[in-house]
Amino acid sequence: MTGLLKIADSLAFGGRQQQWLHDSETLACRMRFSVFLPPAAAHGKVPWLLWLSGLTCSDENFSHKAGAQRLAAQLGIALAIPDTSPRGETVPDDAAYDLGQGAGFYVDAVREPWSRHYRMYDYVSRELPALLRAEFPLNGRCAIAGHSMGGHGALVCAIRRPQDYVSASAFSPICHPVAAPWGRKAFAAYLGDDEAAWAQWDASLLLAERGCPLPLRVDVGLADTFLAEQLQPEALQQAARAGDARLELNRHAGYDHGYYFVASFIDEHLRFHAEHLLT
Amino acid sequence: MTGLLKIADSLAFGGRQQQWLHDSETLACRMRFSVFLPPAAAHGKVPWLLWLSGLTCSDENFSHKAGAQRLAAQLGIALAIPDTSPRGETVPDDAAYDLGQGAGFYVDAVREPWSRHYRMYDYVSRELPALLRAEFPLNGRCAIAGHSMGGHGALVCAIRRPQDYVSASAFSPICHPVAAPWGRKAFAAYLGDDEAAWAQWDASLLLAERGCPLPLRVDVGLADTFLAEQLQPEALQQAARAGDARLELNRHAGYDHGYYFVASFIDEHLRFHAEHLLT
Repeated sequence: MTGLLKIADSLAFGGRQQQWLHDSETLACRMRFSVFLPPAAAHGKVPWLLWLSGLTCSDENFSHKAGAQRLAAQLGIALAIPDTSPRGETVPDDAAYDLGQGAGFYVDAVREPWSRHYRMYDYVSRELPALLRAEFPLNGRCAIAGHSMGGHGALVCAIRRPQDYVSASAFSPICHPVAAPWGRKAFAAYLGDDEAAWAQWDASLLLAERGCPLPLRVDVGLADTFLAEQLQPEALQQAARAGDARLELNRHAGYDHGYYFVASFIDEHLRFHAEHLLT
Repeated sequence: MTGLLKIADSLAFGGRQQQWLHDSETLACRMRFSVFLPPAAAHGKVPWLLWLSGLTCSDENFSHKAGAQRLAAQLGIALAIPDTSPRGETVPDDAAYDLGQGAGFYVDAVREPWSRHYRMYDYVSRELPALLRAEFPLNGRCAIAGHSMGGHGALVCAIRRPQDYVSASAFSPICHPVAAPWGRKAFAAYLGDDEAAWAQWDASLLLAERGCPLPLRVDVGLADTFLAEQLQPEALQQAARAGDARLELNRHAGYDHGYYFVASFIDEHLRFHAEHLLT
């Protein structure tokens, strides 16, 4: 593997929490990612969860704050955590937190100046999984999950290529980005003004059109200040009905958009995926 | 209470994770701290764990990275997490990470320019607990714990005033600071050149001299690069024997100095303290 470089490696819950650098062809830049390998990975290939993070995040937010390693170690599930955009001085950026670096939105950009590097969908759905399965003790059973912008990414990946995953879940996802300010801003920049082309990156539109054979779980907090305008879980729920998809949507009174919400329910998501990863 | 200002409040595991500002008389500056109140705190006073963090940390490192809230919520134990030094533009600092802001070492400084603000022992052992018990639903049963520099602080607090705590524990503590580079540098700055005065801030010297009636637990990682030179757990173990103290010292192969080690064993520490907090 060209340029796969380990930069951190700590024992955690009997497994290994590692951070790696590699040169991504898809993104045309050096990328960092984290993996957690449960104790069982020392003895053979294990199933794994691909986690997509939200706006402003790197691979470290979920690694540090979600507390997922404890139960993942017990269940024998690996965690793979990419960054949220291409990175580096030569990569286009924007001063706003919701565009450019830290805000790749898991789409393949077609518009300048973004199209050369901003191909996060291709990266997280093809290049990175291939690298991970070649270089780490991961088997062919993969689930996908994410938070906020990463929840959008996880749902879009799962609906577009359900054959690649056994299950998908999201915390506080941007469910209908073509109708949300964050999504409209990012899609206009990365995809251009033709809104018809945006539909293939919108979980609610995709799900209504194509359905999805995978079990889907979404959790949102009712004290999330982004819920009504940016997240719109009702759109996803309606699409699931229209597309005949198995969506479990859980609303939690009092929880907000932050990582304490993710930490509070990550065990439930891991057990949801374990049902499909381990059987 | 003068200037007690809530700046963050999230539901977490059914409890409240909060961040507060207040004007500390002891430290002569505005201070931030975090508290986690378990669900049981909505119905009455609960026992609590005072956590002291290590070099470079604020109240956020433990709050974000240790994953302690999950089991604390179940056990009905509150967590109180102060900052690691006085803060602010008017507070003396040093360019090094191991002196000045972020490195208060839980001593009461007597030397200029530190003596006006750097009184972290007095703050964490007197002013802050009094404020917490006056303003939050905390009962009189308190345990103390910490990591690295904060492990040193927790042990020193417990040995100097055992009547204030029911139990004490530490991850990777600086056990014998008068003989360790971090400790010698900080003590020389804060306490002056008379090394005889340092002994009252050294857990191993204090324990050998005074003993300690509290149950003590210490965990260290054998892959911790600071273990031999900076931490010296053997000195504490010898002191416990000399002082007839109940010290459980656990050595863990493969674990390093970081927060993944803390996260891996925080549940064991919480259960250790729960034995004494809840009975």
